[in-house]
Amino acid sequence: MDLGYSTALLTDQYELTMLQAALQSGTATRRAVFEVFARHLPAGRRYGVVAGTGRLLDAIEAFGFDAPALEFLASRGVVDEPTAEWLEGYRFSGNVWGYAEGECYFPNSPILVVEGTFAEAVLLETLVLSILNHDCAIASAASRMVQAAEDRPLIEMGSRRTHEKAAVAAARAAYVAGFATTSNLEAGRSYGVPTAGTSAHAFTLLHDSERHAFAAQLEALGESTTLLVDTYDVERAVKTAVELAGPGLGAVRIDSGDLGVVARQVRAQLDALGAHDTRVVVTGDLDEYGIASLAAAPVDGYGVGTSLVTGSGAPTASLVYKLVARADGPADTDPMRPVAKRSTGKPSRGGRKAAVRRVDGHGTACVETVTTGEPTPGPRDRVLQVPLVQDGVIVGREPLEAARERHRRSVGELPATARQLSRGEPALPTEFVDGGPRR
Amino acid sequence: MDLGYSTALLTDQYELTMLQAALQSGTATRRAVFEVFARHLPAGRRYGVVAGTGRLLDAIEAFGFDAPALEFLASRGVVDEPTAEWLEGYRFSGNVWGYAEGECYFPNSPILVVEGTFAEAVLLETLVLSILNHDCAIASAASRMVQAAEDRPLIEMGSRRTHEKAAVAAARAAYVAGFATTSNLEAGRSYGVPTAGTSAHAFTLLHDSERHAFAAQLEALGESTTLLVDTYDVERAVKTAVELAGPGLGAVRIDSGDLGVVARQVRAQLDALGAHDTRVVVTGDLDEYGIASLAAAPVDGYGVGTSLVTGSGAPTASLVYKLVARADGPADTDPMRPVAKRSTGKPSRGGRKAAVRRVDGHGTACVETVTTGEPTPGPRDRVLQVPLVQDGVIVGREPLEAARERHRRSVGELPATARQLSRGEPALPTEFVDGGPRR
Repeated sequence: MDLGYSTALLTDQYELTMLQAALQSGTATRRAVFEVFARHLPAGRRYGVVAGTGRLLDAIEAFGFDAPALEFLASRGVVDEPTAEWLEGYRFSGNVWGYAEGECYFPNSPILVVEGTFAEAVLLETLVLSILNHDCAIASAASRMVQAAEDRPLIEMGSRRTHEKAAVAAARAAYVAGFATTSNLEAGRSYGVPTAGTSAHAFTLLHDSERHAFAAQLEALGESTTLLVDTYDVERAVKTAVELAGPGLGAVRIDSGDLGVVARQVRAQLDALGAHDTRVVVTGDLDEYGIASLAAAPVDGYGVGTSLVTGSGAPTASLVYKLVARADGPADTDPMRPVAKRSTGKPSRGGRKAAVRRVDGHGTACVETVTTGEPTPGPRDRVLQVPLVQDGVIVGREPLEAARERHRRSVGELPATARQLSRGEPALPTEFVDGGPRR
Repeated sequence: MDLGYSTALLTDQYELTMLQAALQSGTATRRAVFEVFARHLPAGRRYGVVAGTGRLLDAIEAFGFDAPALEFLASRGVVDEPTAEWLEGYRFSGNVWGYAEGECYFPNSPILVVEGTFAEAVLLETLVLSILNHDCAIASAASRMVQAAEDRPLIEMGSRRTHEKAAVAAARAAYVAGFATTSNLEAGRSYGVPTAGTSAHAFTLLHDSERHAFAAQLEALGESTTLLVDTYDVERAVKTAVELAGPGLGAVRIDSGDLGVVARQVRAQLDALGAHDTRVVVTGDLDEYGIASLAAAPVDGYGVGTSLVTGSGAPTASLVYKLVARADGPADTDPMRPVAKRSTGKPSRGGRKAAVRRVDGHGTACVETVTTGEPTPGPRDRVLQVPLVQDGVIVGREPLEAARERHRRSVGELPATARQLSRGEPALPTEFVDGGPRR
């Protein structure tokens, strides 16, 4: 997708000051490998979900310093003139490998690898992390909600609770993780996510009575619409709704009260009125635990807002972008050297890594092997990194449905413990195998 | 600011289906008043901070349904043809009043009032809430960090931990709340927020030694730069830094370990080396509590990332957009009627409201009065709603510095308890005065 704007200034200033210093010291052209990984999952979570890959590829393609960007940098003295000239010609010309979108990940999974010169690869740090930290956080929360909802559909409706553009990305990430629809129209237009929505309390309050409001909505949207029944009195509203729509009414929505109790009352009332096929949709501060608590209630669908767009307690995925290897000199033939900082409490492991998901004879994943050498998959195993960008050319684009389908398979393949909501250890261990230097 | 794109699809689908139904039932042209408020602050917080107003005005100006938007809506059958035609001519032509940006707010403060026909005002709901819920959440967290830091400057550096566009808004909101600078270049370009940044661990790892890296950075950025000293061994790094830069070195940055302990060691070492003016900057998972815990440590500045962009535990401000009054019919002369839903646990109060911050003889705010009648301010009191849009024309634009200065005054005027980090009640009570119908 052509973004129609440059993403180059969605970047921390220090990427540019590092570039300037490296250009001056002659180290800018050293080959470098950066790796994206999480040291840990959010407390108690069993797996994370890779999302945002498609958005990232669009953003990398749109990463170039146009005239307004360069003027800004010059006017503020962020970089000197040689650096500005270098930026003017910048296009990423390296390689990006990554876990395919929708794949599950675990602590230390090398979910993205960026290879290029230091100069060209360091510039992408902020943008890569912004996109992946946001989208993975949302998808990881969304996937738990999907598991909790079992076969009932989920509507994403959190746009109003997050930044207006983050809302679009959140709707996309939720869809990858298995949500059925979103309220967000831009997510429909930009990414083809199915959209949904009917009415709010304001619509009922606008009219002289609830009866007028329901009649107006049915007239405009047809009997398959969803009527919101908790503006005044739920029982009276359900009665009015079926009176006006007949038993073919699509759904009623409950947005307040004890949702399980009210859903049972409403279901019984609908059945008594002969509206056996009218669905009951519940919304209102639901998260994965609230959804799970309604498993035995006669609920046909859930709307989720705040908890989805805020990652249900984990609004960012704690992914980092670390230099793990670099050449000893500027020539293509200079040997690569694994590097890692030794800062207290923030260990990282040097060397370019690959990963394999080992799958047993029952089709269940049992371990993820991370290696600095060439991966050695068995017949059922999956090599997790796929090419996304080669020599600067985007090669990893795919339909969003492919990521959604991949996630369904990836989470289905995990041990059953992965789908528990309770706090616990990651569902798969990540084993490190020192395979020696790679390539 | 001209956004250069339409914001109209950053909207929940149900705003459009309600519009269609209201157009059909003849209620779309009823005059309506929507109000934005929070039923509560995040648990234990003493005040909230209004932010995003300037961004909201830009977004309202850019809210129009262009051809691609209308084509999308038609292709998906979201609205019928008469509604699409209505949308094609849509520009908001009503009034918006709001608490000025930077002002503090409390539960039930009517921080924004949108007046227009139902049709034109309901369409803005999602966008208004997205912008205010995000920016107020960030500014509210940021303000507490600024209080905790007392006179020490704060650098916003959370871009990588949030959606790439949310990052720009977060940097802007943090600046309103008193942060000194941001790492985010687009926030510098779009909003004039001062930017900062020097180098990361990757820069040190890129070079053959820490000494080479420091020398390269000093050569490129000058002795006033900030050297990152915790890649390998802090003590050795500080020694190398001062050897290379001399006592005029601008700052050293510590990003790991027990920041208070390490800051003391580094300060002592710098002083022993004669680098008395070299500042000590600390970063690494700081929040308002971490900042406060370093009050007695020899720290000259803080960098804050994750906790800032995630609202330090409250990533959204829980603001709602509620219809509080509407006309009984379509004519300008039809009387306005206060309305409110009666949903369980989500009370709201009908009627268009105004608010006054009462200030005592010592210049300290003591109560916020919310009234459905005309506000009656005393000589020191402040009427809190200012005109932002009049008859569709943006009138509330102001320089970002004005919002920042307003926030400094607004928080300074609150009782001392407001600036405590401990959990407690809102710093001001919000008293409701029934002033009868207004205008």
